[in-house]
Amino acid sequence: MARIVLKFGGTSVADTEKIERAAGKVAREVALGHEVAVIVSAMSGVTNQLVEYCSTVSPTFDTREYDTVVSSGEQVTAGLMAIAIQKLGIEARSWLGWQVPILCSEVHGKARIEDIDASKMLRHLGRGQVAVLAGFQGVTERSRIATLGRGGSDTTAVALAAALGADRCDIYTDVDGVYTTDPRIVKSARKINKISYEEMLELASLGAKVLQTRSVEMAYKRDIPVQVLSSFDEAIGSDLLGTLVTREEDIMEKEVVNGVAYDKSEAKITILNVPDTPGIAAEVFSVLADSEINVDMIVQNVSADGKVTDITFTAPEEDTDKAVDSLKAIDDLKEASIVANKEIVKISVVGIGMVSHAGVAQTMFETLASKGINIQVISTSEIKISVIIDKEYLELAVRALHTAYGLDADAAA
Amino acid sequence: MARIVLKFGGTSVADTEKIERAAGKVAREVALGHEVAVIVSAMSGVTNQLVEYCSTVSPTFDTREYDTVVSSGEQVTAGLMAIAIQKLGIEARSWLGWQVPILCSEVHGKARIEDIDASKMLRHLGRGQVAVLAGFQGVTERSRIATLGRGGSDTTAVALAAALGADRCDIYTDVDGVYTTDPRIVKSARKINKISYEEMLELASLGAKVLQTRSVEMAYKRDIPVQVLSSFDEAIGSDLLGTLVTREEDIMEKEVVNGVAYDKSEAKITILNVPDTPGIAAEVFSVLADSEINVDMIVQNVSADGKVTDITFTAPEEDTDKAVDSLKAIDDLKEASIVANKEIVKISVVGIGMVSHAGVAQTMFETLASKGINIQVISTSEIKISVIIDKEYLELAVRALHTAYGLDADAAA
Repeated sequence: MARIVLKFGGTSVADTEKIERAAGKVAREVALGHEVAVIVSAMSGVTNQLVEYCSTVSPTFDTREYDTVVSSGEQVTAGLMAIAIQKLGIEARSWLGWQVPILCSEVHGKARIEDIDASKMLRHLGRGQVAVLAGFQGVTERSRIATLGRGGSDTTAVALAAALGADRCDIYTDVDGVYTTDPRIVKSARKINKISYEEMLELASLGAKVLQTRSVEMAYKRDIPVQVLSSFDEAIGSDLLGTLVTREEDIMEKEVVNGVAYDKSEAKITILNVPDTPGIAAEVFSVLADSEINVDMIVQNVSADGKVTDITFTAPEEDTDKAVDSLKAIDDLKEASIVANKEIVKISVVGIGMVSHAGVAQTMFETLASKGINIQVISTSEIKISVIIDKEYLELAVRALHTAYGLDADAAA
Repeated sequence: MARIVLKFGGTSVADTEKIERAAGKVAREVALGHEVAVIVSAMSGVTNQLVEYCSTVSPTFDTREYDTVVSSGEQVTAGLMAIAIQKLGIEARSWLGWQVPILCSEVHGKARIEDIDASKMLRHLGRGQVAVLAGFQGVTERSRIATLGRGGSDTTAVALAAALGADRCDIYTDVDGVYTTDPRIVKSARKINKISYEEMLELASLGAKVLQTRSVEMAYKRDIPVQVLSSFDEAIGSDLLGTLVTREEDIMEKEVVNGVAYDKSEAKITILNVPDTPGIAAEVFSVLADSEINVDMIVQNVSADGKVTDITFTAPEEDTDKAVDSLKAIDDLKEASIVANKEIVKISVVGIGMVSHAGVAQTMFETLASKGINIQVISTSEIKISVIIDKEYLELAVRALHTAYGLDADAAA
């Protein structure tokens, strides 16, 4: 017997039929003798509708009231899921954030879970009752409802798994696992059976939308094995047919490169002819921070003449104009020229085996060169190499790298 | 300065535009210096949708989960209304049943309010903040959400008014008050300016759908003046242009007859040839009670020969077959014949002046006789006379009585 947490996302509970289908998976886990807690998202489309109501009444809505409104979506699914499970002859009840309680910070709309008192729920689980928790929400010290921000139900699931001391947290979604790259680009992309928290973190923040970054962080910190699997397959979590995100130590075969990710959402901004004086970079990036621009990669070359240099960075594409305007207002950049390029893409290769293998970067650079693709910016970490290239080479680059690192399904077979 | 409670029903908060319009009325009351608490229903159509979801998943749903699901409708409106009021520069916050708390019985789906601890809300009102309470719901001792049954938001409003010691409770709806009769039948029907709790109770239970019967009972018991007025008129509650339901003592001019009501929802069942023995009536009506049939009027004539008699009663039309079947199973009625008639209507005249005026019943009987309308059953109380007649005479009878008691708008002018 194990204690497991199952999370069903919006597409998995899109309508009453899908809710009943998900309840069937819960029933199969219960039949295996497991104690089961279920986390549900809002039925798909509901949250968008509720957000629109708030924005229509006032674009500058009070986030405390916004939370009261949007949290109702998960409340509805929780009640319906409990009814659907009961219909299968299994005892179940819904739980709202305030009923557990799940204590949250008061940053309404983007609250963080501070504490979960799982004692009451544990007593119910112990009696063989399935707990169905509304995701994405908690309660503040002032007894107001707070939501965790978009995708927050993944975080609720991992946090509850930690609080319950669960053996596993299964995230049911519309894909059957984490892939070596986007299967829409590379037909031979393979599903990864096991991946480390660190790799998953990189992939999540690099644009693989399968898991919310914060939930992976929390799973890593609290050491909760998380499995990604499809609600539309016959398999259930206990079949272990999805992708298991777990500790590096639990992965026998460490791939040098486990995945190729891409991110089209950024733009590259280059400041040419920057005076090479101490403090200039600090000034540039503090101005950008003040404008709430989330800078990602930063490259500054050694100055050739000791007088002027260039600074390149990437930032969210939609913030490009704001970034350029902020930079133009800096006195020290009067002589500089600022060039923005939205036609770029970031390509990354990720793998925990990378640290102990030489030549990984070399393979990347040679592969791209062999296809005539120019690398504009490079940035590396212990388990990741990212490059910026022209956007039109995206598919070509991803396919070439996927093959070069031996990730193609045929290569593995 | 007064403390007032305003309640907006489903059509008054049907969409975000109507919510903003209602917020405008709240703002005008605040501008008059009043402390204001607002009760909201779900946006129209929402509750039906949520009920349908529950029934689709399981026709025999757990009412505790049903309550979790359907209570979300009022939760959404409460948040949106708070945002709409804030937008007008007025401090406001939403309150859910469990946040007040409004303690309810555990009869989920039809709970009764047992206690409201208004102390926290009173502190907020004292700071000039408008309280927006989600109607129709409370919390049980086990910390589960419970709903009050259909129309329960009226009851929430009156109960909160009592708990807050409010000076008045204004019920905004889609009509501008209580009328002497149905204006769709009698064009010259007049709006009643003041009506007693007792009369309103009779009218509510006789089919005037303006106020929920339980809310009138509670207003009567707790002595809360309730005003019915239209959310689509310019007037606000403090203009006192609706219908005020209040104590008999506060009504100077007591009308002999204040209204003519009708109820098409009942059927008449007659048991002919009943043995005239002690206990037979008790047996008949205990059998009906066991079948959960809500019997309304009962008439039994004196037996002519001392051997057999007839019993007539009315019950909800949809229960006719069930009632007949239950009666046929009674041994003592083997010789009796049972006749059901659905083509009837109950017409009632209501007025607190009736007790001190002779001839009120006579006027009713003469008026109906003059139009050739046969009276099938008669039943009276201190402030009401009801008769059963053939359904096809409904409009004719209502119009004739409305004129006969001097209720026509012209007659009053």
